[in-house]
Amino acid sequence: MKAKELMDKDFVYLNADDSVIDASKAMEDVRRFTCPVVNDKKQLIGWITAFDITKGLREGKEKISEVMSSCEEVASVHEDDPARKAVILTANNKFVTVPVVNDDNQVIGMVRACDIVELLSNLYDIKVVKLYKAMQNQLNGVTWEELMAASALVSKKTTGKKISPEEYEANIMDSTFGEAIWATGGLEKFFAGLISVGEMVIARRVGRAKK
Amino acid sequence: MKAKELMDKDFVYLNADDSVIDASKAMEDVRRFTCPVVNDKKQLIGWITAFDITKGLREGKEKISEVMSSCEEVASVHEDDPARKAVILTANNKFVTVPVVNDDNQVIGMVRACDIVELLSNLYDIKVVKLYKAMQNQLNGVTWEELMAASALVSKKTTGKKISPEEYEANIMDSTFGEAIWATGGLEKFFAGLISVGEMVIARRVGRAKK
Repeated sequence: MKAKELMDKDFVYLNADDSVIDASKAMEDVRRFTCPVVNDKKQLIGWITAFDITKGLREGKEKISEVMSSCEEVASVHEDDPARKAVILTANNKFVTVPVVNDDNQVIGMVRACDIVELLSNLYDIKVVKLYKAMQNQLNGVTWEELMAASALVSKKTTGKKISPEEYEANIMDSTFGEAIWATGGLEKFFAGLISVGEMVIARRVGRAKK
Repeated sequence: MKAKELMDKDFVYLNADDSVIDASKAMEDVRRFTCPVVNDKKQLIGWITAFDITKGLREGKEKISEVMSSCEEVASVHEDDPARKAVILTANNKFVTVPVVNDDNQVIGMVRACDIVELLSNLYDIKVVKLYKAMQNQLNGVTWEELMAASALVSKKTTGKKISPEEYEANIMDSTFGEAIWATGGLEKFFAGLISVGEMVIARRVGRAKK
């Protein structure tokens, strides 16, 4: 995924000679705490946060050029950069927004922390049952009942608590991938548990074939 | 994970009779675009964003009570709510911050979008090799070489491109879980691929045992 696929195009940009008052109104209207400042070629030349605006209003500053940060202080990503670069910038610097530029340094969008949250949280919200369905699909010929029976056995082995295949099924219908990795103690452990289920299903099938 | 484990405690709160000017300075100092407004018992009674402040400064409003949103308009989470609730609120409403309250409705922290990004992106940054190590660990007696050989075969089957076990190993050393799920087309597909590798390793082991 590229930065341009994640960016919000519904942003406002400011010009250096815009008035601080007009800029404050524009930012309130679109509800954006940060804005790029661009020249007449739409190239990034500066950055404005709501803090620059409140300070400017208090101190009676007139023009955006008097209150903006310079271009050099702004971290941006290129439209073809991996989206991950914007995610890492946001996480490490506690940014609210990262501007996205093209080859000509024109601002073409903004990656917002809330959009990243939406994207990343989608993964966490995938139902665990979908992973079991993918596993059943992969393990040709294994029935859902066999899979649940093996899962209940592995679960008992891991947690020490007895659980029926039906109870196990009810659990995974409700729970999400995010809950599951938190509950099992991390991605690797969650994943190892699933491999363990796969292994047991195969072993039981091989066992039956021998009889 | 609970909301209180994810929240930022380094926030500022405002009182209804604070001056708009002082509030703007406080928000600039700690660099927070949003602040809870509390009564003398630290209970949440309102909400301030930088937009309320810029509008208030422009219109010459004096007190926070004149510019704040009322408590009813603020979405908050309880400290013992699952962190996921704050994540969903942030994703669905494009929030920058969600206040966290205790049983007495006192504000005890704020869940920020950038903190959620940091938390969620940690999962994406797990190296794929760690999942293979977990798989090897789970599949007792399987060697790393067997695992890479099976992976290279499954990869060839899926992508149509020939890859040596050594090349495959080099790939997974570098790549992250996030990259892998994007590359394979989603969590279920990535996971099905790993199950497929596990299945092949077991099948080859069984095959050797028969000889």
